[in-house]
Parts: sequence; structure tokens; C-alpha cells
Amino acid sequence: MQIGFIGLGHMGGPMAANLLKAGHALTVFDLSEAALDEAKQNGATLAASPRAVAEASEVVVTMLPASAHVKAVYLNEDDGVLAGVRPGVPLIDSSTIDPATARMIGETARARGNPFADAPVSGGVVGAQAGTLTFMVGADEALFETLKPVLAGMGKNMVRCGETGTGQIAKLCNNLLLAISMIGVAEAMKLGESLGIDPQKLASIVNTSTGRCWSSDTCNPYPGIVPNAPASRGYSGGFGADLMLKDLGLAVDAARQAKQPVFLGALAQQLYQSMSQQGLGGIDFSGIIKLYGKE
Amino acid sequence: MQIGFIGLGHMGGPMAANLLKAGHALTVFDLSEAALDEAKQNGATLAASPRAVAEASEVVVTMLPASAHVKAVYLNEDDGVLAGVRPGVPLIDSSTIDPATARMIGETARARGNPFADAPVSGGVVGAQAGTLTFMVGADEALFETLKPVLAGMGKNMVRCGETGTGQIAKLCNNLLLAISMIGVAEAMKLGESLGIDPQKLASIVNTSTGRCWSSDTCNPYPGIVPNAPASRGYSGGFGADLMLKDLGLAVDAARQAKQPVFLGALAQQLYQSMSQQGLGGIDFSGIIKLYGKE
Amino acid sequence: MQIGFIGLGHMGGPMAANLLKAGHALTVFDLSEAALDEAKQNGATLAASPRAVAEASEVVVTMLPASAHVKAVYLNEDDGVLAGVRPGVPLIDSSTIDPATARMIGETARARGNPFADAPVSGGVVGAQAGTLTFMVGADEALFETLKPVLAGMGKNMVRCGETGTGQIAKLCNNLLLAISMIGVAEAMKLGESLGIDPQKLASIVNTSTGRCWSSDTCNPYPGIVPNAPASRGYSGGFGADLMLKDLGLAVDAARQAKQPVFLGALAQQLYQSMSQQGLGGIDFSGIIKLYGKE
Amino acid sequence: MQIGFIGLGHMGGPMAANLLKAGHALTVFDLSEAALDEAKQNGATLAASPRAVAEASEVVVTMLPASAHVKAVYLNEDDGVLAGVRPGVPLIDSSTIDPATARMIGETARARGNPFADAPVSGGVVGAQAGTLTFMVGADEALFETLKPVLAGMGKNMVRCGETGTGQIAKLCNNLLLAISMIGVAEAMKLGESLGIDPQKLASIVNTSTGRCWSSDTCNPYPGIVPNAPASRGYSGGFGADLMLKDLGLAVDAARQAKQPVFLGALAQQLYQSMSQQGLGGIDFSGIIKLYGKE
Repeated sequence: MQIGFIGLGHMGGPMAANLLKAGHALTVFDLSEAALDEAKQNGATLAASPRAVAEASEVVVTMLPASAHVKAVYLNEDDGVLAGVRPGVPLIDSSTIDPATARMIGETARARGNPFADAPVSGGVVGAQAGTLTFMVGADEALFETLKPVLAGMGKNMVRCGETGTGQIAKLCNNLLLAISMIGVAEAMKLGESLGIDPQKLASIVNTSTGRCWSSDTCNPYPGIVPNAPASRGYSGGFGADLMLKDLGLAVDAARQAKQPVFLGALAQQLYQSMSQQGLGGIDFSGIIKLYGKE
Repeated sequence: MQIGFIGLGHMGGPMAANLLKAGHALTVFDLSEAALDEAKQNGATLAASPRAVAEASEVVVTMLPASAHVKAVYLNEDDGVLAGVRPGVPLIDSSTIDPATARMIGETARARGNPFADAPVSGGVVGAQAGTLTFMVGADEALFETLKPVLAGMGKNMVRCGETGTGQIAKLCNNLLLAISMIGVAEAMKLGESLGIDPQKLASIVNTSTGRCWSSDTCNPYPGIVPNAPASRGYSGGFGADLMLKDLGLAVDAARQAKQPVFLGALAQQLYQSMSQQGLGGIDFSGIIKLYGKE
Repeated sequence: MQIGFIGLGHMGGPMAANLLKAGHALTVFDLSEAALDEAKQNGATLAASPRAVAEASEVVVTMLPASAHVKAVYLNEDDGVLAGVRPGVPLIDSSTIDPATARMIGETARARGNPFADAPVSGGVVGAQAGTLTFMVGADEALFETLKPVLAGMGKNMVRCGETGTGQIAKLCNNLLLAISMIGVAEAMKLGESLGIDPQKLASIVNTSTGRCWSSDTCNPYPGIVPNAPASRGYSGGFGADLMLKDLGLAVDAARQAKQPVFLGALAQQLYQSMSQQGLGGIDFSGIIKLYGKE
Repeated sequence: MQIGFIGLGHMGGPMAANLLKAGHALTVFDLSEAALDEAKQNGATLAASPRAVAEASEVVVTMLPASAHVKAVYLNEDDGVLAGVRPGVPLIDSSTIDPATARMIGETARARGNPFADAPVSGGVVGAQAGTLTFMVGADEALFETLKPVLAGMGKNMVRCGETGTGQIAKLCNNLLLAISMIGVAEAMKLGESLGIDPQKLASIVNTSTGRCWSSDTCNPYPGIVPNAPASRGYSGGFGADLMLKDLGLAVDAARQAKQPVFLGALAQQLYQSMSQQGLGGIDFSGIIKLYGKE
């Protein structure tokens, strides 16, 4: 298939490489010369603008840092995707952005005759490299079926969440909960340690009880509890605190627009903000436990 | 075995009944005539005081509402357990109290020659009736082995958490996390609903993703997601919000004494307090979702 | 003086009327026919667009609901203020918006040769009507002196806060603190009441002690403490909770962009959001005390 | 007057010294030899126990660290104040403790025929030394009049708050608000600084606007704003963060017992706890601003 790919960063780079490995032909665009060079060596054709990518493609995938970039790449009247794409060509945005922008772009694309899906991912850089990402897809049934073969080149799981925008909603809601439960585990582990229970013992009890959660049984923030978790290797790898902070910002902002209070979510955001201010934004988000005193 | 049992309330009543069914002989005490009558009909022998219970028993089990009752029952110089118990008779307190009190009573008992275990439970009234409670036990290895046959008459799982007090610590830390993650799920579900994703779909995504937790996959607070969860039957049954509030109070208080901040835990406590103030303290704690607007 | 005025709402309407009363000639624009009619009856000249207002004026004042409106009114290429204003004509925006947008518009205006001041107000509708507003002005010294006679037609106090944007910063920071201290007073008053002290007595002690603040001595949220405060007349009049919520949103958002945690500010925002969700967004923000149970 | 004084610490020491200076005869007790020596040099008579103090006095004043000490000093059956005091002798407790304990001791004392007043102070060590303390007094009118001459020897202001316990309630409620508003000022000042307004300018605006409060105009936490505030001398002197943490603990605990949520109060407590955990418990509580990043 002739696929266009825009955005070749830490996530987009390996995703594009996997599409090439899967046998697709790729036309790509990025602002970084280095990223373009690498894509070229992998066999991609370079294009001079998002518009040029779109003109050459049967399907377009975008993977960008934030809403502003997504708007610019799709909507720029001179050289944006919608300025050049042929009617009927489906568009997939895998960036994590606010649901309202996803919907707006979806409507604009549809008005031009282009089906649009928001398809943010979970799995991180490791999943992007290994081709094991999970896609949370906002698309109608027919479009979802059409896009599956493309997504299958980059990931392992594809979940249809509903119509346009629901992929972003699912991701934000999941990460809101994740941000909170990680702090909950950090507080429980540090409290237990302070009171004198063996942290390993505490974790094993929690993990078979009502406190069990991914943040405790798979990514426990206390060092040494889960051997291959970021906490056990100095909080390296994993999901950076600043990325979590970005997603929390989107979630709390979406809540504000929906006039929905999120008490713990808002406080969690401030705690990750404090972690970032202390220079810890680059380590795994489970490093939030460092706010709770020495290990 | 000749077992003494003190405290025949919603939890203690069925626990005592199960010990009788398991073939043990029981001597019991409670302040409620009705509770004593029921125990008598089940085959228990009534005693006039905690001391009288202790004098007649090879092991003593207590199941009381709060620290003050536990102190009074064990330490009263005239008619308390320690005033009458024979040296060497092991003592089990299954009440949920603060770890410091558990340790103090343990030390006092040991000084008199009586081994003491704190063994708070999870599983609620349903688990107490069905004999499927989990015991979190603070006791040395030898005592734990000695007590297993007694606990087996009332529950299914027994976990040794460490020395005296660690049973209480494990329970408080687990419930601190549980209180937080339940609110996290409530915020995520209500946010998703407000933004327009199908709640059932959202829950299924979260439950296979990094947000998964007991509060989402087993006791989801959104009505209709988990068929037999309290939320799906008007928040009846389950673990009452006022009981969660009591446990959170113990956890946050223990944190204060340990000089350990618990940001989300303290805010969670206030949210359950608000729920209780609004007259909802009697429903399942997953009813906290009602603070987030109409369903 | 020949003044242009754009935005004739609850605040802008009376502000324009006061400028007319002060003897200035006004050219005005608004989207509401009714607002224009009233301005005309007061003696203003109507214009067909912001551009037309600007073309006719020696100074332009804008009073708009939010950043999006301010951007549109100043920057629209066809009929915006900057499309028509003569070089050298000073511009005053009295809307409450984010500091970054204020700075951006200021720079754009200056590049065209027009001095720009952000001058948000405090004092509310009552102050706008009485001509007793306070202006927090972001402008250099010379511009500030130039604008004083115009501002003097609408308010009593003019404070220069620094360069462009600082007027907005001062307002947001003040209102962040105000939002927090009002909740602090509400918690103190309700706690005192619950514990059994006379609320009037408590307020009088606080007001001569270290807890004293405007929210306690001038706008106490407990009914009957300050005779002419909103709380003493059913929370009518005053500063609506939804307006406070808007300002808090701007403050917390600006904090996010500045990577500055605001723990209490973020929680305060959620509490006012909850108040709004319960249908109380229209009453004075001191009505936040209603979240704390019955009076 | 023949006054008994128990508790000669940082506060009680200078208070007793001032009573001696005012011409009263003092009989004193403390556990510290050094404190007793100093009192003796100042002219006090030493006693061997609280009971002995009480037996020798026409009025008894106590100034102790916490509820537990107050209970012990008044209620110990062997050597407590109530074991020795003559009927009719009035008792004044100036410690800061929970209102429930104050009431309990008051009732016990009255049952023995001794009027009791809770009279916690504000003003700190500096006020104690200068004799300028403020007393918040829980006592009936007649008792209040009786005690005034004694209190006048140690302070400048005496406020009657209502019946027994209301002195403590007033102090806790005031300090709850103070703890919150100080953090509010810290957040506003740091946000303003981050956004680029001159902190001195911001403070002067806030102090003449709706954000004004003691924490801003008298004890501003930003260094250099108020010349003689603790923040301007390295946060030395003033009201130590650990003392504020103690008072907040009493307030939040009293709220729990009254089933009254205190959202900001509980979060404030955790923030001061975090400050204390970072080793800053000994500096003035306005040092909370250090949690918000570098100055």
C-alpha cells in the first residue's frame, strides 16, 4: 500500500520503519533532516510538505507532538494535508491531542470527502520499536475495518472506541486514572515503609487484594518490587513524567470544558508538575514516589 | 477447641457462628442481649465479661469497632481479657485499629506471657457469613502456624504480614490505595461520559490497559458496568462509605504520626467525608461517584 | 476626546455610559442590537465593525468576554481594530484574558505603531456602574500617563503593574489568592459552627487576628456576619462563581505554562467547578460555603 | 495574687517571668531542672508536683505542649492539679489542645467546684517575652472578669470567645485559615514571579485589593517584601512550621470528629507535612513557599 507518514520523532520514526518492514511503500515528511535521512535509508520516499505527502498517498498517518502541530499539518491552506489529499483517502492521526480538536479535524476532513480516524497509542517508544503498540481508535465500523491492515503494521492491538474523538477520550481517561493510581500506590508503599512493614510483603498483599492495579503489580514505584519495572532500574525507560504531565493537562482541560470536576486528577497534575519542577520530568512517572521522601 | 469470642456485631456474629459450625466450643461476650441470644441459639456459652471469656478459653478472638473498645476489652484491670487469661493462651484481635495500639496491646500481652496477633480482615459482611474472609496477620511464624486452624474456621485466606502490627498496617495501606483508586475510576468514568464515550466501552478499554484495577474491573462505580457490583444494585451491600471513612481516618492518622505526607489520601478522606455529610455514608463506598454529578 | 469602545455587555455597557457622562465622544460596536440601542440613546455613535470604530477614534477601549474575542476584535484582517486604526492611537484592553495573549496583541499593535495597554478591572458590575472600578494596567510609564484621563472616566483607582501583560498577571494572581482565601474562610466558619462557637464571635476574632482577610472582614461567606455582603442577601450580586471559575482557569492554565505548581489553586478550581455543576454558578462566589453542608 | 504556674517552656517561661514582674507571687512546676532554676532566680517558689502547685495557689495557670500533658497534669489521681486544688480556685489552661479535651477537663473541674477557662494564646515566643500575647478565652462572663487581671500580667488583648472550649475552637479555626491563606499567598507570589511581574509590585496591588490578608501584608512569604517579616531574615523567628503542623492536625482532627469536610485544610496539612519531611519544620511557616521552587 502507498502510505503517507508525517512526524518521524521518537514514536513516529520506529512506527514508519515498521510499516516499511511490513512491505508498504512510504512517502514521509518531517522538519528534522536527521529523521528524514534515517527514513530514506530505511527505504522511504521524501516529500517536501504534508501536502506533497498527501498527494502521493492512499492513506495518511500522522504522529505529532501536540494539537497545534496537528492543526497546522492538516489545515494549512498552502501546504497542509487537506490541501493536497485526494477525496476518499483515509486519514489517521495517532498523536495524543484533545478530543475537541480531533473532532474538528475529523469534520473538516469529512466535509472534503476524507474519512478521518483518531488513533492514539499506548506502549511507548518500546512498543513503537517492537511493533506492539495498542491503538485506541475513534472511527466508524467501516473505516475501522479499512484501517486495520495499516495499523497492524505498527501494533498488536486495535480497539475501536466509538466515533471520531473517542480514541482520544479513551486515552485521556485511562491516563487520568493511571496518574492517580500510581500516586496512590506511591503513598501506600511509603506509608507502609514508614510504619514498618516489609515493602515486598505489602506489595504482594495489595496485589491479591482490593488495592491491586497495574501501578502496583506491573509498574510498582518502589524500587526492587517488580524486577523489570522502571523503579528497579533507576526510573529509566518507561513513560516519562513530562509526558504524563502533558496527558494530564489534556485530561484536566477537557474536564474543564465539559464542566466536570476532577479533584484527584487536578491534584495529581500539580504533583507531577512539582516533580517536573524539581528536575525529574525526564524519568519514568513512577518516580513520583520521590516526592514522598527518601527510600 | 475451646475458643473465646468477644464482639458479636455484623462481622463478629457470623464469624462466631462459623467457628461453631466448624466444631469448636465457644464462650462469648457482647454488650447486646440480642447478639448474645443469637449466639446462644447457635450453641455458644455466654460469659459475663471479657475476663470470664478469657478464663474459659484456650484461644481468644476479638472483633470490635475501634481502638478504644479494644483497649478496654483487653486492658481493663477488673474484667478485661488480660485480667483473666491463662499464661500461654494466644490472643487474636481481628478489629481494624491503628497499628500503634495493636503493638502496645501485643507488648502488654506478651509481657504477661500471652502471644498476640493482630488479624484484621477483608471481605466484609458477605465474607464473614460465607466464611471466606481474608486475614492479614501480624504474628511471628510460630504463632501464625498455631492460629491457622482457628482462622480457617472463619476464612479462606491467611496472609502473614510480619510481626505484631503489620496486619493492621497492611490493611490500612491497602484501603488507602483502594479509596484513592475508586475515586480515580469515578473521575475517569464521569469524564469519559461527559466527553461522549460509551461508559461500557471505556471500562473495557481501561480494564485491559494501564488503568486497570479492582475498582474498575470488579467494583466499577458506574452503574451497569459490572453486573453484580454494588453500583449495579443501587450501591447496596458492599463496603459502606462510613467504614471506608473510618479506615482512611486511621491511615491518614498513622501517616501523620509517621510524619509521612499522603496528599491524595488526605483529599480522598475529605471527599468521603463530604459524601457522608450528604447522607450517603451508609451506601457502598463506590457511591463516591455521586459527588461528580448526575448519572 | 474621541473614544472608540468595543464590547457593551454587563461591564462594558456602564463603562461606556460613564465615558459619555464624563464628556467624551464615543463611537461604539457590539454584536447585540439592544446594547447598541442603549448606547445610542446615551449619545454614542454606532459603527459597523471594530475597524470602523478604530478608524473614528483617538483612543480605543475594548471590554470582551475572553481571549478568543479579543484576538478576533484586534487581529481580524478585514474588519479588526488593527486593520483600521491610525498609527499612534493608543489601545486599551480591559478584558480579563491570559497574559500571553495580552503580550502577543501588544507586540502586534506596537509593530503597527500603536501603543497597547492591558487594563483589566476589579469592582464588578457595581463598580462599572458607579464609575469606581480599579484598573490594573500593564503599560510603560508614558503610556500610563496618557491613558489616565480616559480611565478616570470609568474608575477611581489606576495602578500601573509594569509592562504589557502585567495587568493581567496582577489580576490573575490576586484572584487566585482570593479564590483560595474565600474557601479558607468558608472552612474555618463551618468548622467553628460545627464545633460550637458563635459564628459572629469567631469572625470578629479572626478579623483582628492572623486569619484576617478581605474574604472574612468584608465579604464573609457566612450569612449575617457582614450586613451588606452577598452572603447576607442570599448570595445575590457580587462576583459570580462562574466568573471566578473563569479567572481561576486562566490562572491555573498560566501556571501550567509557567511550569509552576499551584496545589491549593488547582483544588480551589475543582471546588468552584463542583459548585457550578450543582447549579450554583450564578450566585456570588462566596456561596462556595454551600459545599460544606447546611447552614 | 498567689498564682500557680505549670509548664515553663519557650512560652510558659517568659509568661511566668512576666507574672512575677507584675508583682504576683508564683509557685511553679516543670520537669526541666534548668527551667525551674531560671524561675527560681526570677523569684518563683518551686513545688514538687502539679498537686503541690495547686495546693499553694489562688489561681492556677498551665502552659503545656499537648492534650496528653494537660490531661496528666490536671487529672492524675495522685499528684494532679485536681487532686490538690481548693474548691473555688479558678484554673486557666493556655496550652493549645483539642476543644473536646478542654471541655472534658472543664467539666471535671467544675464538678469538683473549680471554674476552668481554656485560654490559648497567639503572639508566639516574642509576644510571650514582651507580654503582648492575645488570649482567646473560653469562660463564662463572670469567670472571664475574674481572670482578666491575671491574663493582663502576660498579654495585651483578652477576647472572650464563649463557653469552655471556644477559646481552643477560635484558635484552631483562625490557624486553619492562616495556614491556607499563607499557602495561597505563596502560590500567588510564585505564579506572579514566574509570569514576570515584579513581586514587590504584585504584593502592593494584592494588599490594596480583594486578596489582601495578614499573610500578604504583614508576613509575606516572599523574601524582601515586608522588611521585618521572617521571610526577609531567612525565615528565622516567627511561628515554626512544625507548630503550625501541630495546630493544623488539631483542626483537621476536630473537623473529622465533627464530620465536617475541610478540603483545603487537609491539603494544607499535607503540604506542611511535606515541608517538615524535607527538614524545614523548624523555620517560620511562611517558608512553605520553598515547596514552590527556587526564589
